[in-house]
Amino acid sequence: MGGSSSPCASCKLLRRRCTKDCIFAPYFPPNEPHKFAIVHKVFGASNISKMLQELPIQQRADAVNSLVYEANARMRDPVYGCVGAISFLQNQISQLEMQLAMAQAEILCIQMQNNNNNNNLCEIQINNNDNNLQHEYISLLQIINNTN
Amino acid sequence: MGGSSSPCASCKLLRRRCTKDCIFAPYFPPNEPHKFAIVHKVFGASNISKMLQELPIQQRADAVNSLVYEANARMRDPVYGCVGAISFLQNQISQLEMQLAMAQAEILCIQMQNNNNNNNLCEIQINNNDNNLQHEYISLLQIINNTN
Repeated sequence: MGGSSSPCASCKLLRRRCTKDCIFAPYFPPNEPHKFAIVHKVFGASNISKMLQELPIQQRADAVNSLVYEANARMRDPVYGCVGAISFLQNQISQLEMQLAMAQAEILCIQMQNNNNNNNLCEIQINNNDNNLQHEYISLLQIINNTN
Repeated sequence: MGGSSSPCASCKLLRRRCTKDCIFAPYFPPNEPHKFAIVHKVFGASNISKMLQELPIQQRADAVNSLVYEANARMRDPVYGCVGAISFLQNQISQLEMQLAMAQAEILCIQMQNNNNNNNLCEIQINNNDNNLQHEYISLLQIINNTN
């Protein structure tokens, strides 16, 4: 019974006796049957058991949480799972890096304009349209380089 | 033999006959035995087979690639797997968003300084030290608000 009054969610689903030293019981309580069902469907009970056995006890709860997260992602997106989320975040980082580089170039440009008191230097309008970002950033850098 | 001269990597590892309609054969060629071994260790051959069967043929190659990526991540980091990478990328996004907000506030500040010709407005030095970012950003916004 994994130390509680009813078998854990894993043993209940697998229809087996839940012993005192059940490896699943601490992480899959009987009142959360869906949690085990989803990781069982994606990873399989046998693989989860092996993965947990290879980890020290204090890391097993984190491992179970990450497996549940991954399994949920795979259920939502059966083709890409977590990798879809990684790809989305990487794209977001690329866009933010570009916007930051643009903003830093704009700061540099305004500061140079102030220092040189040259009103013709920074006539490029910063346009947040993604299609124009790279082109404008390169143009801006060229202007800065030409004035150095 | 999955249409080729030798059994696919999956059937070879599972020691079973590789038939012409083997679901694994197109994605796990015999010359890449490690690719199947790793997804089998993490997801199990039976689960992979079920997942592939539930997908249209044209999406299966992408699904296999994402499963291999996920399994590799789990091998490298048995506690967090792909979720560790997601967490890392989310932190990176938070830092970039903060840096971008700082840079945009600085642009606004310089522009206001130019418009008002008030040299005392923007005396805060933008410091990229992460520990000071949030504090300085709030200070900057307070100055901007006070001048409106």
